[in-house]
Amino acid sequence: MNEQILNYAGAPTKFIEVEGIRYAYRSLGKQSDIPIVCLQHFTGTLDNWDPIVINGLAKERRVITIDNRGIGNSDGVTPDNVQDMTRDAIKIITALGVSKCDLLGFSLGGFIAQNIAVERPDLLRKIILVGTAPQGTKALYSFPKLVEKAAQLNNPMESYLFMFATKSEKSRAKLGATLRRLMERKRDRDKETSIPAIQEQVKALTRWGTDPVTVKLSEIRQPVLIIQGSNDEMMNSASSLELFNQITNAVLSYSPDAAHGSFFQYPEMFVEQANFFLNTFE
Amino acid sequence: MNEQILNYAGAPTKFIEVEGIRYAYRSLGKQSDIPIVCLQHFTGTLDNWDPIVINGLAKERRVITIDNRGIGNSDGVTPDNVQDMTRDAIKIITALGVSKCDLLGFSLGGFIAQNIAVERPDLLRKIILVGTAPQGTKALYSFPKLVEKAAQLNNPMESYLFMFATKSEKSRAKLGATLRRLMERKRDRDKETSIPAIQEQVKALTRWGTDPVTVKLSEIRQPVLIIQGSNDEMMNSASSLELFNQITNAVLSYSPDAAHGSFFQYPEMFVEQANFFLNTFE
Repeated sequence: MNEQILNYAGAPTKFIEVEGIRYAYRSLGKQSDIPIVCLQHFTGTLDNWDPIVINGLAKERRVITIDNRGIGNSDGVTPDNVQDMTRDAIKIITALGVSKCDLLGFSLGGFIAQNIAVERPDLLRKIILVGTAPQGTKALYSFPKLVEKAAQLNNPMESYLFMFATKSEKSRAKLGATLRRLMERKRDRDKETSIPAIQEQVKALTRWGTDPVTVKLSEIRQPVLIIQGSNDEMMNSASSLELFNQITNAVLSYSPDAAHGSFFQYPEMFVEQANFFLNTFE
Repeated sequence: MNEQILNYAGAPTKFIEVEGIRYAYRSLGKQSDIPIVCLQHFTGTLDNWDPIVINGLAKERRVITIDNRGIGNSDGVTPDNVQDMTRDAIKIITALGVSKCDLLGFSLGGFIAQNIAVERPDLLRKIILVGTAPQGTKALYSFPKLVEKAAQLNNPMESYLFMFATKSEKSRAKLGATLRRLMERKRDRDKETSIPAIQEQVKALTRWGTDPVTVKLSEIRQPVLIIQGSNDEMMNSASSLELFNQITNAVLSYSPDAAHGSFFQYPEMFVEQANFFLNTFE
C-alpha cells in the first residue's frame, strides 16, 4: 500500500475479499499506528466524504474509507439491520490487517460505530460520532418519509441540500460547495448505491429507532467525540446530547445553523476538533 | 506597553485610572489588531486565570485581564448587580484604548460579556462564554447556599475543588493541578478579593437569576463560542444549551466529567478551540 498519498482525490479504489465478497475501500494518509476507519451515511459511498475532511485527517494519520456490503463498488446484499452491517464492517477492518483503529461514524455509520464499540471494544481506541443517534431514537420513525420527500425533489442538488443543509442561504451555500467538492474526482469513481441497497438501508435506519435497546452506551470506555448541528431533523439534534449523557467520556460539539451535514458545513473546524481529539484527548 | 511578554507569569500588574477609580490589569501576548479581554468569575482576580489558558491565547493575540471595580487590586466599591459591573468593564476597556475586542467571559464574567454584547455590540468582534448562564437561570437561586457550603469546608483546596471540579478523582486531580498553577506566580500577586466585595458579587449573581430578562440574547450577532462541563451544578450545565439555542451564531462544546471549571480541567483543548474560533470561525 502506498501510504504517501495525502490527497483523497489521488487515493485509488482498492478491493479486498472476505468470505467470498469483494469490498471496495481507499487508504491514504501519513503512516500511523492507529488508522481511522470511516463509516459512511445512508446511500453514501467512498465518493461521499468531503475531501477537506479526509485530507485534513490524512495529514496526521492513515485514513481508510470503506463501502459496506452491497454499497458502491462493494459486492453482496446490503443487510436490512445495523447488527449485520456491524459484523460486515468488523470483517473488513480485520481483513485489512487492522487490529486497533479509531472510527469516524457518520449517521448510519455512527450507528455501526456505536455497535462496534459495544461488541468489539478491543478493536477501538477512539470514536468520532457525527450526526447520529442512539438506538431507540424516535425521530427515526419518520426517516422513510424524509427519504421520500428528498426523492420527490427530483433534483440531485436539492435532494442533497434537503438531507444535509438547513433552509438558510448560508447553510445551503456551504453544503452546495461540499457537493461540488464531492464531484471533483472524475476518474475511478464509486458506483452509485443501488435502489435495492437503499431500500435495505432505510429498513435498517428505521429499525435502529424502533428496536429494543441492546447497544448499551454506558459500556463504552473509549473517548468519544460527538459532532452535531443545531437543526438536524433526521436524527433530532437533541439525540447527540443523549449520546453525550450516556457515554462516560465524551466531548460534544454543536455548530450553528447546521443540519445533518454539520461537519461538511464546517469542515475546517471539524478537522481541527477531530485531530486534537485523536492526537491528545484522553 | 511591552507586547513581547508571552508568559502570564511575566506580565506585570498595571493600573489605569477612570473617573477617579484605579483599576488593575495585565496585558501580554503577540501584537494583534483585536485583543481579547478576559472577564473573571466570582471572587476571582488577575491571579485566577489558568496560565495554560492565558499563555495559549497569548501565543496568537494580545490578552488583557482586568480586575473589575473593587476586585483584587482595583479600587472602588463592587456593584451588587451585573448592569453596573458591565458599565465598569466597558469603561476599563475604553480607557485602555481598545475600540474593538474579543471577550472571554467566565461565569459572572460571562454575564457581563452577554450584557456588553447587547449594550455595546460595536465594541465586540467575537465572544467566548465559559461556565455561564442566561439571565433568569433558576439554578442561580441556590448560589448563596453553594457559597456557604464552600466556605464551611474551611480549606482553600477543598473549597476550590467544591466550586470547580466534579466529585471524581480525575476531575479533582486536574483542578488540583490548576490551583497549583494559579499559585506559581510568587511576586506581584493580586490582593485577594475582600469579603464585602464578595458579598456584593453574591447579590449580583443571584439577581442575574431572579431579575426579569432584559438582556436579549437573540440580538447578539457576533460569533459566540460556548464552553461548559457536563456537571456544572452552579450554573446548571443545561444553561449553556439555552445560550446556544438563543444566540444565532454560536458553537457549543461540552466536556465530560467536568463542572464549573471545565476549561481549566481541559486547558489545552480549550486553547485549541478558542484560537480556532478566534482566528477562523465566522
